Amino acid sequence: MNTPGTSVSGYVLLLTIQFVFLVVFGICTGYDDDLRPRNGTQAEEGFIIPKYPHFQDIHVMIFIGFGFLMTFLKRYGYSATGLNLFVAALCVQWAILMRGFFDMENGIIKLSLDDIIGADIATASVLISMGALLGRITPIQLLIMGLFEIVLFATNEFLQIELMKIVDIGGSITVHAFGAYFGLAVSFALRPTKENAKAGELEGASYTSDIFAMVGSVFLWIFWPSFNSALVDGPEQERAILHTYLSLAACTVTTFVVSALVSKDNKLDMVHVQNSTLAGGVAVGSVVNLLIHPVGAVVIGTVAGALSVVGYRYLSPKMLEKGRIADTCGVHNLHGMPAVASAIFSAIFAYFATKDAYGDSLYTIFPGMKNSSMEEGEHEIIIGGFGRSSQQQAGYQLLGILITLSIAIVGGLFTGLALKLPNFKQLQYNEMHKDDVYWETPDGHHHEN
Amino acid sequence: MNTPGTSVSGYVLLLTIQFVFLVVFGICTGYDDDLRPRNGTQAEEGFIIPKYPHFQDIHVMIFIGFGFLMTFLKRYGYSATGLNLFVAALCVQWAILMRGFFDMENGIIKLSLDDIIGADIATASVLISMGALLGRITPIQLLIMGLFEIVLFATNEFLQIELMKIVDIGGSITVHAFGAYFGLAVSFALRPTKENAKAGELEGASYTSDIFAMVGSVFLWIFWPSFNSALVDGPEQERAILHTYLSLAACTVTTFVVSALVSKDNKLDMVHVQNSTLAGGVAVGSVVNLLIHPVGAVVIGTVAGALSVVGYRYLSPKMLEKGRIADTCGVHNLHGMPAVASAIFSAIFAYFATKDAYGDSLYTIFPGMKNSSMEEGEHEIIIGGFGRSSQQQAGYQLLGILITLSIAIVGGLFTGLALKLPNFKQLQYNEMHKDDVYWETPDGHHHEN
Amino acid sequence: MNTPGTSVSGYVLLLTIQFVFLVVFGICTGYDDDLRPRNGTQAEEGFIIPKYPHFQDIHVMIFIGFGFLMTFLKRYGYSATGLNLFVAALCVQWAILMRGFFDMENGIIKLSLDDIIGADIATASVLISMGALLGRITPIQLLIMGLFEIVLFATNEFLQIELMKIVDIGGSITVHAFGAYFGLAVSFALRPTKENAKAGELEGASYTSDIFAMVGSVFLWIFWPSFNSALVDGPEQERAILHTYLSLAACTVTTFVVSALVSKDNKLDMVHVQNSTLAGGVAVGSVVNLLIHPVGAVVIGTVAGALSVVGYRYLSPKMLEKGRIADTCGVHNLHGMPAVASAIFSAIFAYFATKDAYGDSLYTIFPGMKNSSMEEGEHEIIIGGFGRSSQQQAGYQLLGILITLSIAIVGGLFTGLALKLPNFKQLQYNEMHKDDVYWETPDGHHHEN
Repeated sequence: MNTPGTSVSGYVLLLTIQFVFLVVFGICTGYDDDLRPRNGTQAEEGFIIPKYPHFQDIHVMIFIGFGFLMTFLKRYGYSATGLNLFVAALCVQWAILMRGFFDMENGIIKLSLDDIIGADIATASVLISMGALLGRITPIQLLIMGLFEIVLFATNEFLQIELMKIVDIGGSITVHAFGAYFGLAVSFALRPTKENAKAGELEGASYTSDIFAMVGSVFLWIFWPSFNSALVDGPEQERAILHTYLSLAACTVTTFVVSALVSKDNKLDMVHVQNSTLAGGVAVGSVVNLLIHPVGAVVIGTVAGALSVVGYRYLSPKMLEKGRIADTCGVHNLHGMPAVASAIFSAIFAYFATKDAYGDSLYTIFPGMKNSSMEEGEHEIIIGGFGRSSQQQAGYQLLGILITLSIAIVGGLFTGLALKLPNFKQLQYNEMHKDDVYWETPDGHHHEN
Repeated sequence: MNTPGTSVSGYVLLLTIQFVFLVVFGICTGYDDDLRPRNGTQAEEGFIIPKYPHFQDIHVMIFIGFGFLMTFLKRYGYSATGLNLFVAALCVQWAILMRGFFDMENGIIKLSLDDIIGADIATASVLISMGALLGRITPIQLLIMGLFEIVLFATNEFLQIELMKIVDIGGSITVHAFGAYFGLAVSFALRPTKENAKAGELEGASYTSDIFAMVGSVFLWIFWPSFNSALVDGPEQERAILHTYLSLAACTVTTFVVSALVSKDNKLDMVHVQNSTLAGGVAVGSVVNLLIHPVGAVVIGTVAGALSVVGYRYLSPKMLEKGRIADTCGVHNLHGMPAVASAIFSAIFAYFATKDAYGDSLYTIFPGMKNSSMEEGEHEIIIGGFGRSSQQQAGYQLLGILITLSIAIVGGLFTGLALKLPNFKQLQYNEMHKDDVYWETPDGHHHEN
Repeated sequence: MNTPGTSVSGYVLLLTIQFVFLVVFGICTGYDDDLRPRNGTQAEEGFIIPKYPHFQDIHVMIFIGFGFLMTFLKRYGYSATGLNLFVAALCVQWAILMRGFFDMENGIIKLSLDDIIGADIATASVLISMGALLGRITPIQLLIMGLFEIVLFATNEFLQIELMKIVDIGGSITVHAFGAYFGLAVSFALRPTKENAKAGELEGASYTSDIFAMVGSVFLWIFWPSFNSALVDGPEQERAILHTYLSLAACTVTTFVVSALVSKDNKLDMVHVQNSTLAGGVAVGSVVNLLIHPVGAVVIGTVAGALSVVGYRYLSPKMLEKGRIADTCGVHNLHGMPAVASAIFSAIFAYFATKDAYGDSLYTIFPGMKNSSMEEGEHEIIIGGFGRSSQQQAGYQLLGILITLSIAIVGGLFTGLALKLPNFKQLQYNEMHKDDVYWETPDGHHHEN
């Protein structure tokens, strides 16, 4: 009787990291001015924190949505819900700090609701990567991967949004593409031997686990409009809500139909239903606040659903067999390809953006198109300078996705190689997708169908 | 081995419909003025879309609530959660268009959050009908039924609310009664042969499926105050929240007690717990913004719970055996009877509504009671004219439910007959309530308990 | 074949109580002025009820969170979700009335959203007590216990908050400590015989039931910031959100690590994951609006997670074996000890609270520190008088937890003795943790793992 779950040194390392976080929180953080006591006796009652409902919706997506979506494996439900919580709880703290380092005042990160919204969104990228690797790495490897990824995520996000003024309100470029290709690159670095480049024995659903996965999937579907609209206000926010809703609805119908048409005996496939129905939320992400017209959202959703199902049916098996890139949840089909499509859509819509259509909001939506004379306050420096034309902005959108993919892939390969170091226990083929290795289970040997 | 799930032509038809929707969105829709860019550099930050949290609560009800409530069948969980999503995704698009056709400006439906709230609510009526037919018709039949139903729903809603100025803020008349009796009429049109007029072999719960159903039931319970208060503002909204809360609480206690008292060995029955506890939300729907006093809500909830449990225990089995009307989820007991009760309550409270009690809000709550001189702007035309007395308004409330029932029943019978056309594959008795017919399942033959 | 579930007289008693509630609602309640029709034709559209999103989050915690957290037992899922709903539906009505009796105007309790938020929070204390006793008492005993507990809860809450001006925004003292020790005292009064002072045969999880429990646990985790911030506004509210978020994140990481370190073979334990991850929300509750600095929240969460896991691993088994105090859900480790810790933290932070740090908000946060000259309107009378120093306020915080514990323990013992009266059927050892005793189940004898 060996104890394959044991990795005391790994858990001690994580405890140490938590203590380091504690110290850094002590030294480097403080309250945003909005959170400080105000003098004068103005009535605070009825004061509303405008983004709080949006935050809570996103919070449900991160902790219930991702966690339960990953319960589809028949014998990995403790890990799906539990490790999702563990990884996210570690990463949100790290994301608050890492993102904060790019925006300190006098050496202090001034915390407010915005920071925890940002931390939740950053953590989504790690959970996407986790989907690619689900059941194939140890909890310790997963958590270390998350810490590496947050560093690169925060850097790339700052580069894209602050320095390059890329438009990406729904995070398709910075979150979905980044998370998916980072995870796939890690997966490639950890690729199995040729004889093991096939789906594991436990890499499938049971009847019950598939229904648990719908809890996650449907909550992601429901709250995606909040994810895509949390970072804008006013008319942009309401457009983002409407577009995401329409894109998801059209995507869902397309997913079901295409799933039936490409499947054996024309039966519906729960993998498609759980995942591809969400691709419309990803694919509309980078253009969600633009004037894409309602029909634009419907078109994007339709394309995304079809693309995603086809990816699950034809591409993923090939990637595993030929490329030895495992992708347990198929994040390439749900997050990867739809996000790249979204970036391309964003270049197209930026290309045709005019002052006539957007009015003054052209410059708040595309801040890179402001004249330098229109900048307020301290002179920001952005890559390539202000005063871009629509065509130039389109170019920057494409540059944004290219740089993001490069950072994600190189960073993922590097991270994957690090996780192969002998310091880390590697999972054996017969330990994959199996809670019993790391969890006390009521019935260590029994597998339900 | 035939392939009973195959219905390529049906799925192709649905894809065609989705493309037609796409074209109509392109031609007939645009943004509401609130969603258009605004000129001038007013700060949009902190701007709140007031109904967005309500929308998200309703969205949870439609996609998690209804979807999981229907998972109670032991072998129909993929269909419950999956087809609920499919049907709803198709119907919300169609509802946006159909409802929009009644409110176009220069041939354009101007979209905003209100339209997707309305679309979600309209879709609830289809999901209620689906409950009556759950497991008894094919996915294609279900979707076609939904398309028919939305046409009639939108027409009846416009007739009741705009032309007849019926009071029905919680949608008991236009949504619950309509959806329930439409579904029951379809069920009657598709009634089984005499020997099959009994519960199917798989028409029951497993221990696990019953707990899944509680996910749906409890989320419906929790967010019902949002459903009932989404279309009003100010004091009316807060009253609607309070009344729904009290009615549901009283209904729930009554449901448990009556369930134990009428059941075998005085044991509790999960069917009652999952469904009848919600009847209080339906029964208070049409009066939810009126001055019914808190005790009015408690009384209504108590009556609704008892009525609903008694319906499940004694009426539904009779309807199936004698009338050959199948009602898998018992929507007659959860939505049908409580909604008719709500309409009657609305007539009673309208009858006694006075200017003394309501002040100026009498005319916003009961717009038909305005003097014609009080109409603002363009002169609306309503059936029977403005300036109704309380007694006349009460009459219109009763007329409203009668017309609604007529449209629902005639429309449902017609739709049911259409679904019996030989173009549609009909489910055989032994194919009912069985995911395996339409889904790839991990274990096509095994049935859990 | 006897019918152990039968208790007609109990259910009739509950129906009688529901009718009494109905009468009392009729006589003693009315609308708050905010819910009454307003004259003048001000536009109500866009009016927002500020606390409604918070209410709905708390509502999810009470009905989904607590209900599903308790589904972890392999054969008690109907009771967990069903009785949670039953108990809560009864107790919210009673809590509206009992809490209202302390705040009547001319003999009328004027109802608004605040009352149902308060009722939900009060009910949390009963559900916590239910956790200690889960599966060990009959539904009738449970409901009667809830009615007793609400009386004491409302009295103690009034005493602490209104008369003693204790700071306890997150309810750690008034809700968590009260509910936990009340439940444990009931459990002690009903303690088993020596030979039965061990975990029951069915007192454990199945693979599926553990995942259901995660639905509840994660929703509690997600919405805890709303629970802890619902009763404050402005900067205090945003601090409460931030602190709860940080405390839970740090607590979760600590929980996983300590769980692995203290468990057999260093495997993770779902009991800890489901429960101890939440202890950070409890432990920060009484100080959640104070200026504890972000690092204070991280420290508190870290301490709470470790304390809670250690409690589950070492203390609870001892309490059962030596003290014969059963605690099915381990509420002592999730609610009891962390809440006492929170009270101590509140005394410490009160001790060091200064006008320099808090500005004018010192007197809204610690109303007992106001000079009597600063009281507005009618002169309130508080225990010990106004004008407390920081040190005195710290003393009152400690006094608050001591009095709360005394009331909870004495009240719980008394309640437990009442539940042992021969009028009540007592569960036998072999009837414990078993739905089949009180529910119609699809398979009365089969037990899944």
